[in-house]
Amino acid sequence: MFNSDSLGINNEGNLTIGNLDTVLLAKKYQTPLYVMDEDMIRHICRIYKNSIDEFYKGHGLILYASKALSFKHIYSVAKEEGLGVDVVSGGELYTALSAGFPADKIYFHGNNKTYDEIKMAVDSGVGHLVVDNDYELTLIDEICQKENKTMDILFRIKPGIDAHTHDFVKTGQIDAKFGVALENGEAEAIIKHAMQIKTVRVTGVHCHIGSQIFDIEPFKLAASVMLNFMADIKDKYGLELKELNLGGGYGIIYTDGDDPIEYHEYIKAVSQVVYETCEERNFPVPFILMEPGRSLVGASGITLYTVGDVKDIKDIKKYVFVDGGMGDNPRFILYESKYNALIANKATKDRSEVVTIAGKCCESGDVLAKDIAIQQAEPGDTLAVLATGAYNYSMASNYNRIPRPPIVMVSNGQDKLVVKRETYADLMKNDLD
Amino acid sequence: MFNSDSLGINNEGNLTIGNLDTVLLAKKYQTPLYVMDEDMIRHICRIYKNSIDEFYKGHGLILYASKALSFKHIYSVAKEEGLGVDVVSGGELYTALSAGFPADKIYFHGNNKTYDEIKMAVDSGVGHLVVDNDYELTLIDEICQKENKTMDILFRIKPGIDAHTHDFVKTGQIDAKFGVALENGEAEAIIKHAMQIKTVRVTGVHCHIGSQIFDIEPFKLAASVMLNFMADIKDKYGLELKELNLGGGYGIIYTDGDDPIEYHEYIKAVSQVVYETCEERNFPVPFILMEPGRSLVGASGITLYTVGDVKDIKDIKKYVFVDGGMGDNPRFILYESKYNALIANKATKDRSEVVTIAGKCCESGDVLAKDIAIQQAEPGDTLAVLATGAYNYSMASNYNRIPRPPIVMVSNGQDKLVVKRETYADLMKNDLD
Repeated sequence: MFNSDSLGINNEGNLTIGNLDTVLLAKKYQTPLYVMDEDMIRHICRIYKNSIDEFYKGHGLILYASKALSFKHIYSVAKEEGLGVDVVSGGELYTALSAGFPADKIYFHGNNKTYDEIKMAVDSGVGHLVVDNDYELTLIDEICQKENKTMDILFRIKPGIDAHTHDFVKTGQIDAKFGVALENGEAEAIIKHAMQIKTVRVTGVHCHIGSQIFDIEPFKLAASVMLNFMADIKDKYGLELKELNLGGGYGIIYTDGDDPIEYHEYIKAVSQVVYETCEERNFPVPFILMEPGRSLVGASGITLYTVGDVKDIKDIKKYVFVDGGMGDNPRFILYESKYNALIANKATKDRSEVVTIAGKCCESGDVLAKDIAIQQAEPGDTLAVLATGAYNYSMASNYNRIPRPPIVMVSNGQDKLVVKRETYADLMKNDLD
Repeated sequence: MFNSDSLGINNEGNLTIGNLDTVLLAKKYQTPLYVMDEDMIRHICRIYKNSIDEFYKGHGLILYASKALSFKHIYSVAKEEGLGVDVVSGGELYTALSAGFPADKIYFHGNNKTYDEIKMAVDSGVGHLVVDNDYELTLIDEICQKENKTMDILFRIKPGIDAHTHDFVKTGQIDAKFGVALENGEAEAIIKHAMQIKTVRVTGVHCHIGSQIFDIEPFKLAASVMLNFMADIKDKYGLELKELNLGGGYGIIYTDGDDPIEYHEYIKAVSQVVYETCEERNFPVPFILMEPGRSLVGASGITLYTVGDVKDIKDIKKYVFVDGGMGDNPRFILYESKYNALIANKATKDRSEVVTIAGKCCESGDVLAKDIAIQQAEPGDTLAVLATGAYNYSMASNYNRIPRPPIVMVSNGQDKLVVKRETYADLMKNDLD
């Protein structure tokens, strides 16, 4: 019925998350409100971590891809669960460090890191930079020379596999802004270049083949392609790359049609390819990195709204208006992403109406779900949109100068505010006369 | 050559805005950076205001549609130029009031104003609420009764005209989240209802037929439809609506293909329809309101970036990476909006390269312009994207935890910081442990 075990229905007929009544949470914290099940996030962390232990004999590390959802407390959770993190900006790095996250377990990504960001990474002792291009390599060298430091780096490689939700292609991705391609020799050339630079040590390679993927094959293929490349580099240049970062992209359930692979099944299947390929190529099994983001936090989060007007345009369409919208969840207007939603205070009732859920933004595209079956909505109802844990808060804007909602974490039957609601004064904090 | 008279090229061959060197501005304030020509904004304000004087004998008011770009200083400009403003949220209202904007010249819009927002509007003496639906009407009545106040209201009407950039349809728009439709009797019904409510006085009606419109005909048609409706209401119910709010939607030049109407020509043409229709229907010429947003600020703004890596994927594509992207300008990823751009420090050079300008966000769709001809780009160049004054800062996010750029206003050859750059600490201001 729901996309996650974290959700249920209590005796009052209200939707629960982590056994807490969402209607009471909406009253306590007001709406719109993000609620996350911390226990579920930790549970998924452990599935990933245990799989590394089981299928790679512990020779690997799960990096939380923090672009999915970045705020101080999430880094404490990742730290406590023994994960590393990947960051993609100075802002994410700053937040991770502020939470006391160990710098040496941070991997810094991005296609266009600025000089200041690279300097910040070098200064703060970030463990690895995942280098995108040759220009970045020269910046790193320049900064490391100035500061008399060295840096461990991986290279972001385009393996020629482009995977989408239900499909993938074997060649593709070369026309992408990220990384260097295998097929035209860019990847080999940049590694050759890096081998001549004394301030960097090339520890490995990274690939990321797509997002919200439900198929195991492209991941297996990517592992094989990357390992063969690593073996080629060793054969050709004598350089033994010790780390293979397989990126993220594991799908979650947004709506009933979604059928993601179990994460440990994915890791098991890929590990077989890794061991087989290493044996074939007589290459030592590298340290394995993975970067789940959405799959760690996406299904663990919901957004609660209060219903305002229900606009029934006779014989045309029924709109249910909520007190948030594209500001707190821009994924429909960006990608027409589909979500499951329900009236939290009528969770046991039939989904008897097909409606369009629209936000309060002054923008006609401000919609959260189109033609979705939900319970009969009335003003004052609490509406829950499910699986909003990833790429909602992180992509939120203040469009129409609407404050961003707070985040409440639920754990062991207790709720805890981890990000406060923005105030109107917050919106003006940088405005001068 | 440029989309506005505000832009030029100086003796150093650098792009100027309001006669100031953009390369020096980029150095002084760092990048990414929004720069606005305040003198140009004021000039356009006066074109609109003078047109009201000339074509409506001063019997009207220009409302700045602040959703296009809302921050404290812009309300001071609007106030000094004698404009009213429209706001669409408590946050915009708060900002306008903080700037000392007179509440009685504020019109409050929105399809789903919350109880708190309506209360805030009533308490602060906002001049008019533009009511979207019947539920809102009951909320207003409830609040006004409690506080023993009355409120002037307009109704948002769907006139059955749906205009797009180069096209419009005469029936349409009924399936839209905003307002009440004429064609199915909703509009008439809500006015009848409001006439029975003692706490509100219906002063007029409002319509908005689209955005970035280049054609004068749909505006003329809308005026005619709305006035005939007002005359019908008078004939049927004896209620003389005194205000006609014709909304916004006037196009600006983003790229060379755009050819907007001159704003005074539009106002002149529509005023003829207004006077003719009023005479035909024996209806007194109403007070005319218009709500330009984009056309007041859009072409007056540019965004300056610094070029990072230039990624030449041989025989495939050349990417120019900049230090901003979808975070500060989400209009390409949202709508594939087209922009003009150039290398500010090579403004006199030939546009010899066709490139894709991509941002630094960890998102493959993070692009600012696809296949655009610009001067040959190198790391460290200053890249200017033009006509970013509207719906850039207002829609900006912190995706990837990238701070939002500052806004610098240029006036009389002087630059002035009006919105400070966000800091990493700002991003964490609401994060709890």
